Amino acid sequence: MSVHDKLKSLGISLPPVTPAAGAFAPAVRTGDLLFVSGHIARREGKPWVGQLGATMTTEEGKQAARGIAIELLATLDSVAGLDRIARIVKAMVLVNSVPTFTEQHLVANGASEFFEEVLGPAGKHARSAFGVAQIPLGACVEIELVVELRPEGA
Amino acid sequence: MSVHDKLKSLGISLPPVTPAAGAFAPAVRTGDLLFVSGHIARREGKPWVGQLGATMTTEEGKQAARGIAIELLATLDSVAGLDRIARIVKAMVLVNSVPTFTEQHLVANGASEFFEEVLGPAGKHARSAFGVAQIPLGACVEIELVVELRPEGA
Amino acid sequence: MSVHDKLKSLGISLPPVTPAAGAFAPAVRTGDLLFVSGHIARREGKPWVGQLGATMTTEEGKQAARGIAIELLATLDSVAGLDRIARIVKAMVLVNSVPTFTEQHLVANGASEFFEEVLGPAGKHARSAFGVAQIPLGACVEIELVVELRPEGA
Repeated sequence: MSVHDKLKSLGISLPPVTPAAGAFAPAVRTGDLLFVSGHIARREGKPWVGQLGATMTTEEGKQAARGIAIELLATLDSVAGLDRIARIVKAMVLVNSVPTFTEQHLVANGASEFFEEVLGPAGKHARSAFGVAQIPLGACVEIELVVELRPEGA
Repeated sequence: MSVHDKLKSLGISLPPVTPAAGAFAPAVRTGDLLFVSGHIARREGKPWVGQLGATMTTEEGKQAARGIAIELLATLDSVAGLDRIARIVKAMVLVNSVPTFTEQHLVANGASEFFEEVLGPAGKHARSAFGVAQIPLGACVEIELVVELRPEGA
Repeated sequence: MSVHDKLKSLGISLPPVTPAAGAFAPAVRTGDLLFVSGHIARREGKPWVGQLGATMTTEEGKQAARGIAIELLATLDSVAGLDRIARIVKAMVLVNSVPTFTEQHLVANGASEFFEEVLGPAGKHARSAFGVAQIPLGACVEIELVVELRPEGA
């Protein structure tokens, strides 16, 4: 099953790609690697503002991380095409956290589990997750990726 | 125009490279990629101490980020040569932030816009920017890079 | 001297690899690069809980970072074999810090100095170190790596 068909079977349609809020590119390819910019959580097209441990629960954070993973797939589709993804190599998951919140790994699972659900073994990645003091526009979660693409013509 | 000529036309001379404040290398090459260590903001040769949202404005943070971009070019020149830069692939921009400051992306633009001004399309990169609790020596901003170099002999 | 012999000469035995606390892989290889997931500090097999500037000294943090470096070698040994390490390319060192703690670079040296002690020039890496609001499970330090492996058959 193609990645597009898998998304359809899950009832997920990819959102329009959000323009970068700054002087940078959504992703840059070098060799077979694609470095994807940090994407912030959005809800109804606007930054999903919140802080784990204060205004949001772990479960809500996990939903936000899953939403970012869908936005990341939309970016990957627009810059390379979903069926060119050989592997999600690494994710960095930043969680807007009060100093007492220690479940960043559970929040991050919202994205990690989604990638594996949609991409299978190619979705299983290395990962770092941690709590940060703040995220642009007050967003609750931000995720950046390194992705391996299939060589051209493969 | 070479990168050196472009810098000259902007009235910018590269500073001497600051030795790493720790047991690490300023940059490490692997294949065509150069991983460049986090560089902290400096002013008059000393760490530029400050925190966005407390002791510094967004505009000052942006100037600090631009200053780091110049220091990063100095490091790139010393380890590889500016004219060997094929592309700035990715930047990670850490902003020393109080929990209420949410303009890390505007601070980061100080570096991103500079890279594009000096390097043209080769300066446009993927990026993550976020607020951190603190940076070594109390610096206000820290930036690390992944850079693609031209293959030897190219 | 092999890396295993060097570890033995230092009286260090590699611990069993700790399973990832989440839906991700301990490391993912792409080409000759291995992206290694963030590893948190552990003591007696449990997360080493603490915050620099509050409940831990810089020296204790440095010991925690050194301990993570040993765990990272255990992971590298299990996924690739220590003698296939061509180079530690980059380390990202996250230090659980109160906003007034500014010695993240000294904490990070606990890992950086260890890698150079064990691996020689191949252990000298690019690095970013910074203070974060919190780390999964309350751990005091987290480190992720990019490692270059020798090509198969080399």
